[in-house]
Amino acid sequence: MTGPRYTPLVDSLPATVPFVGPETQERAMGQGFRARLGANESVFGPSPKVVAAMAEAARGSWMYGDPENHDLRQALAAHEGVAPENIIIGEGIDGLLGYLVRMVTAGPADHIVTSDGAYPTFNYHVAGFGGTMHKVAYRDDHEDPAALLAKAGEVAAKLIYFANPDNPMGSWHPRAVVEEMVAQVPAGSLLVLDEAYGQFLPPEDLPRIDPSDPRVIRFRTFSKAYGMAGARVGYGIAAPELITAFNKVRNHFGMSRVSQAGACAALDDGAYLADTIGKVRDAVARIGQIAAENGLTALPSAANFVAIDCGRDGAFAKAVLDGLVARGIFVRMPFVAPQNRCIRISAGEKADLEVLAQALPDALAAARTGV
Amino acid sequence: MTGPRYTPLVDSLPATVPFVGPETQERAMGQGFRARLGANESVFGPSPKVVAAMAEAARGSWMYGDPENHDLRQALAAHEGVAPENIIIGEGIDGLLGYLVRMVTAGPADHIVTSDGAYPTFNYHVAGFGGTMHKVAYRDDHEDPAALLAKAGEVAAKLIYFANPDNPMGSWHPRAVVEEMVAQVPAGSLLVLDEAYGQFLPPEDLPRIDPSDPRVIRFRTFSKAYGMAGARVGYGIAAPELITAFNKVRNHFGMSRVSQAGACAALDDGAYLADTIGKVRDAVARIGQIAAENGLTALPSAANFVAIDCGRDGAFAKAVLDGLVARGIFVRMPFVAPQNRCIRISAGEKADLEVLAQALPDALAAARTGV
Repeated sequence: MTGPRYTPLVDSLPATVPFVGPETQERAMGQGFRARLGANESVFGPSPKVVAAMAEAARGSWMYGDPENHDLRQALAAHEGVAPENIIIGEGIDGLLGYLVRMVTAGPADHIVTSDGAYPTFNYHVAGFGGTMHKVAYRDDHEDPAALLAKAGEVAAKLIYFANPDNPMGSWHPRAVVEEMVAQVPAGSLLVLDEAYGQFLPPEDLPRIDPSDPRVIRFRTFSKAYGMAGARVGYGIAAPELITAFNKVRNHFGMSRVSQAGACAALDDGAYLADTIGKVRDAVARIGQIAAENGLTALPSAANFVAIDCGRDGAFAKAVLDGLVARGIFVRMPFVAPQNRCIRISAGEKADLEVLAQALPDALAAARTGV
Repeated sequence: MTGPRYTPLVDSLPATVPFVGPETQERAMGQGFRARLGANESVFGPSPKVVAAMAEAARGSWMYGDPENHDLRQALAAHEGVAPENIIIGEGIDGLLGYLVRMVTAGPADHIVTSDGAYPTFNYHVAGFGGTMHKVAYRDDHEDPAALLAKAGEVAAKLIYFANPDNPMGSWHPRAVVEEMVAQVPAGSLLVLDEAYGQFLPPEDLPRIDPSDPRVIRFRTFSKAYGMAGARVGYGIAAPELITAFNKVRNHFGMSRVSQAGACAALDDGAYLADTIGKVRDAVARIGQIAAENGLTALPSAANFVAIDCGRDGAFAKAVLDGLVARGIFVRMPFVAPQNRCIRISAGEKADLEVLAQALPDALAAARTGV
């Protein structure tokens, strides 16, 4: 008896996960985390109106979700000031990135550009569809638009991944830089502008981009500022031709009906969103304070997390991180040098950050003594 | 300014949807359906315990769902009497079928076999990954195991799609036939046994299959008997090597946390499932009665829907269907002759079926007179 014959590409891939989930770590530790500050989720939760809408929609979850996502698409178009034809909705940005990579990648002759140390799930999809990935270095803890564009021109890249604000560093670029980047996209390339953390930027700092511009797709999500990571709702804003192309490959009935309802309710509750953003700002400041109290430097952040420079190399930062994890705090860190001198802490409730404040000195001391 | 350069395959694909959603039809009609009997959803809804679990989980939807689906996987393993290593969980069977097709299909040299008129979403995925599809005819309104196996051997098929019970006809095969089919799978082929409607068969009529058998994967879902179509939870049972291979390509963080919680609660409420199955049986009988009252023949069904033979050709059945839709009843029909002499009615509440009973005579009369 033989099993399936996989494609050569799939045979060559490792079974992997872009991120190990905190639940996996909890099962390994045999206990739960005291503070969940590792995945840039919003501990402030979804709006109570979202929770109510999802609870109500649960009764109707015997029905498939509308495959056109009509109501949410209309609401998003109004919210973003674009036409519904400019909006694609999918199973988180992760799901949409997978579709997009698939749409342009047939094999190693298709070249993709990103920054070394940027979002691993994008890389996972590129590997999964067999594209050739080119990575350029961060510059001063920022993604480097000039280097990304230069590499894209050099390799005739099909996609250029660029996150603003950036994850994992929290850095960002002025809107004029991003707008100029769009203008410089080489012919035949598409700029993948990941704005998962865009809601944390002041609206006037977000780039103005013509939604009919065929050179760029912007991705946004309900996972971060709206506190709905577990609902799996992301969306893209792009030219109608590109939006339509998603309908060639996407899982049309892939959206949870409860999540659709929750996202519509979230858009209706701007006051809650503003309140969350305020709480995130406070938490980011408090994390900076905690870092300073421990002689460390928090990097400026325009997102709902902070990269703390631990002042030495990646092995040291990893030891600090391990110390925090051992003390019940879920945190993550950048993968690549020199950014991996940092640990990355998500915004938390005051109580979460007190747990951090109490644990960090011990974790640092242990890392310094190698204990 | 130029747009993205798609792969030749994606360029060649139409923007399409395997099924038009009822909401799309409602928007076109400018009013809602009076009875929603077209998508084999369960109008009986999810268990109140499921609704409660989903409502409770909504508060926690700021957290990503566990990418390992650990708790649900453990519960499913216990429920199915297999090891957790035999279970893959995904965004509905639709999502899992997409991953599976991708895993074995690199282009037209990869051959796939199905029945002409079987599940269109499977065909959508095969087209979307560029495989070559081979279709064999139904035999007496049943999928034809011998013909599927013969064709698979002839073309060295990588996948053989086979649904039991079948959709859209509701027919099924004795477990010995399916077990023998597994035994006859050609070397290098994988039998994709879609048991979306398996819970409606008496458990003793489901085939016994060694979960470590590398020649078959069984798919099941919470969308039908559990009344959770909108939650998007499907699962596969297969040999551990195949289960692991899904981890090379799947969207690890693609599952809704609310849906995970709902599915766990559904497994815990066997009494509700049994009650639903009883209601479905009654509804299937009532649909048969309504057909007979109109001089039509309901085909035997082991699922939560009934194919009603309208007694003439596909154009006539389409006219009957259009008449029902015009009278506010969402129904669908088979795509391919001669099965398209039928319309397909999903099990409904008594009130839904009264709407059907009242509308069918008029719809039939209109179809006969061409009005």
